[in-house]
Amino acid sequence: MTIQELKEMVVEANKELPKRRVVLYSWGNVSGIDREREIIVIKPVGIPYEELTVENVSVVDFDGNKIPGEKNPLNPSVDLDIHRALYENFSSCNAIVHTHSTFATVMAQLHRDVPCFGTTHADYFAGSVPCVDALSEEEIIHNYEWNTGMAIVKYFCEHKIDPAEVPAALSVNHGPFTWGEDCWDAVHKAVVLEEICKMAVHMLAIEPEWQPIPKVMSDKHYYRKHGANAYFTNDDHGHGMVRSK
Amino acid sequence: MTIQELKEMVVEANKELPKRRVVLYSWGNVSGIDREREIIVIKPVGIPYEELTVENVSVVDFDGNKIPGEKNPLNPSVDLDIHRALYENFSSCNAIVHTHSTFATVMAQLHRDVPCFGTTHADYFAGSVPCVDALSEEEIIHNYEWNTGMAIVKYFCEHKIDPAEVPAALSVNHGPFTWGEDCWDAVHKAVVLEEICKMAVHMLAIEPEWQPIPKVMSDKHYYRKHGANAYFTNDDHGHGMVRSK
Amino acid sequence: MTIQELKEMVVEANKELPKRRVVLYSWGNVSGIDREREIIVIKPVGIPYEELTVENVSVVDFDGNKIPGEKNPLNPSVDLDIHRALYENFSSCNAIVHTHSTFATVMAQLHRDVPCFGTTHADYFAGSVPCVDALSEEEIIHNYEWNTGMAIVKYFCEHKIDPAEVPAALSVNHGPFTWGEDCWDAVHKAVVLEEICKMAVHMLAIEPEWQPIPKVMSDKHYYRKHGANAYFTNDDHGHGMVRSK
Amino acid sequence: MTIQELKEMVVEANKELPKRRVVLYSWGNVSGIDREREIIVIKPVGIPYEELTVENVSVVDFDGNKIPGEKNPLNPSVDLDIHRALYENFSSCNAIVHTHSTFATVMAQLHRDVPCFGTTHADYFAGSVPCVDALSEEEIIHNYEWNTGMAIVKYFCEHKIDPAEVPAALSVNHGPFTWGEDCWDAVHKAVVLEEICKMAVHMLAIEPEWQPIPKVMSDKHYYRKHGANAYFTNDDHGHGMVRSK
Repeated sequence: MTIQELKEMVVEANKELPKRRVVLYSWGNVSGIDREREIIVIKPVGIPYEELTVENVSVVDFDGNKIPGEKNPLNPSVDLDIHRALYENFSSCNAIVHTHSTFATVMAQLHRDVPCFGTTHADYFAGSVPCVDALSEEEIIHNYEWNTGMAIVKYFCEHKIDPAEVPAALSVNHGPFTWGEDCWDAVHKAVVLEEICKMAVHMLAIEPEWQPIPKVMSDKHYYRKHGANAYFTNDDHGHGMVRSK
Repeated sequence: MTIQELKEMVVEANKELPKRRVVLYSWGNVSGIDREREIIVIKPVGIPYEELTVENVSVVDFDGNKIPGEKNPLNPSVDLDIHRALYENFSSCNAIVHTHSTFATVMAQLHRDVPCFGTTHADYFAGSVPCVDALSEEEIIHNYEWNTGMAIVKYFCEHKIDPAEVPAALSVNHGPFTWGEDCWDAVHKAVVLEEICKMAVHMLAIEPEWQPIPKVMSDKHYYRKHGANAYFTNDDHGHGMVRSK
Repeated sequence: MTIQELKEMVVEANKELPKRRVVLYSWGNVSGIDREREIIVIKPVGIPYEELTVENVSVVDFDGNKIPGEKNPLNPSVDLDIHRALYENFSSCNAIVHTHSTFATVMAQLHRDVPCFGTTHADYFAGSVPCVDALSEEEIIHNYEWNTGMAIVKYFCEHKIDPAEVPAALSVNHGPFTWGEDCWDAVHKAVVLEEICKMAVHMLAIEPEWQPIPKVMSDKHYYRKHGANAYFTNDDHGHGMVRSK
Repeated sequence: MTIQELKEMVVEANKELPKRRVVLYSWGNVSGIDREREIIVIKPVGIPYEELTVENVSVVDFDGNKIPGEKNPLNPSVDLDIHRALYENFSSCNAIVHTHSTFATVMAQLHRDVPCFGTTHADYFAGSVPCVDALSEEEIIHNYEWNTGMAIVKYFCEHKIDPAEVPAALSVNHGPFTWGEDCWDAVHKAVVLEEICKMAVHMLAIEPEWQPIPKVMSDKHYYRKHGANAYFTNDDHGHGMVRSK
């Protein structure tokens, strides 16, 4: 993929967020990484999705600095360092989406993991989508954005969760992050996560302590779609499926 | 009805699902059966609704094998065996719809039957829409899809429910299935089921143990529309009523 | 108003129901009455809103019989007798709307009056919108529709509620009826009732026994808009305000 | 800004309310003030948003009287005195929005402050959005609208809340008011308040006594966007971001 192609994908994937109703105003951002060229392309701060183009999308190096030679008229999203922390530690992840989508944010604000309550969840995530630990006061005051990303990384390490199998997390009191093989995959996960959280929130209003489905059933759904023995393929991951018409 | 007409109906009925907002991405499928010609027409796996045509819709025989002579470029939905189990055992059923519509899935994930909470329900279903029994570990690991269909069949047999009078079921931890005289009838039931589940979920958040309406009232509504003494006819079942403009 | 004008208003007011999302499929109907000419114009059974015209709308006399001379190709809504009972007893009412709108139906299915929980309610209804008493088994089996209307009438009489001041009721286990000075006024009330029920349902999920606002406040809001001392006028009741653009 | 420009902004900001789905029918109004020229421009009573123009928008002086020379064919919104009380006492406020948006009204009807449940809230409001004290019977009967505004003013004074830092309040049993630097800023706040109330209402249905996030975290989010040390700027406040395309 050329840099130009990566920019186009980042731009179009950002524009998908309001179409899928997972952002209000400018409350979300998509980035993509080119690990060989060592650049990250991300939505700039302060620009409506409608005005985002391959000309004004932000391009930065792995330290978050603007690339000399790129025009870079706008600053990258204030969330850049969260994305950087995830890219640096989750090597399988090539794109990241952050939103404040309503029901995923409800779960994050309730400090609740999203348990695997059914096969819709199990089709995409191999286990609970965790709500990660809160930051210390010190971590909030200094390097807040980087620490927010690292809180996700630490949680996945400590709990031995493979970010390729659970490509999503809730930042406590904040909102959801999803990631994937490319921008469309990460957007797809963001929309799916919002839908399963919508189901979960309505379930918990009736049964506040409801438990996840049996592991044999969630494994069946996850592994019929993912991994070496998958037989439910050719679905979902095509961009034609994810992108709004 | 010719095969061509059946294909057209299956294609258009599948396209109705996103219009009625009962599917997200490719999360649902419609099939239709021609019992004389012994074929089933079903949405293929891995194709967006927008790209579905009479040319690429899947056609299989009653064993689920592709028909020689048909082009069949794509594999049938991974849910085909669920549909096959229902067709084989519910002789009155000529079309099946599966979705993961939000509120019907909430009820399935809560292991709850949808009780007849009002006349909206009673106008369509002669009793609760059951959430059927969970599969054993063995049934999940081997022939999962076929067993998922058979769990519905067994539940209706054991509880002596006529699938023509209750043309819907919830697959536990999974989501809704509906069926009908033809594809439009089955889609109609899928949309109605989602709406009555939306009502039920909001009721149960206030009154978790609410009970169904008296049988004399639900019978009145069901039988004024269905059966030998119906006087509320000429409604609902016309395709003109169901199909989006 | 000529008969032609009444037909046009009934037709357009019926078409407003799906635009305002208070009906699904054909789940609702609007009627209007001409008390001098002794006719009722009502949506026919079994026709999509889109196909409704001044040519096919139903015209009946006060006994519910088709009018000789009118073409009357279609039967009137099966709910006609409910409308007839209300017209016969509520002399101030010139139009009636019935829907199964989601949240009003939730309240009806929960056997709950809609209490005046705020000024939005008080701007339109001088007190609770009552959920009326259930029918006896005998009343369900014989003349069900007429008895459904009479249950509303009886409740208003027994509780001394003026139907001009509370132009709405919930039919228990069934759904909402609203009425007004003309069809647009009755449609307006149907949409407002759904919105205040949506608010009420979400409140009751948090506080199941919440109480209405003080009478001095609800009176203030109701009577600043209605009656001899109204000063908040020239609002709401214009058809230009109610009808979708 | 000229009077003409202020009128245009008030007109366009009023039209934004139905686009953002925070009003039904005519249930809301936007006003703007020109403190030098001592005029307030506000939506007139009894006109649909679609028909609002710079010619018919209401212009009044600080006492609420129509301006001689202005055409003023229509009366100002009945809520004018609420706006006047806020303008007179909140010197930093140049525009006011009132709606009956669903979830903000639910919170107002439940007599609940909107606690800072997450960073979405903290990005906009430096603390809880208060639900202010109820009026006395006397205050309801005489000068109700003025007293409604003064109840907000008194609450902010007594609790030492800076209306520039918490530019919103809930009028108990009534609904939300928001304000800002100009009309678009105030509309922006109205839409944001509805979204954070939607999240709060769904949280409280699961956890009725949930508590706000730690102050260090809410301060971090508020002050990275506002005040002398803000580094998350160039976002949100541009009209291009707020206004619907």
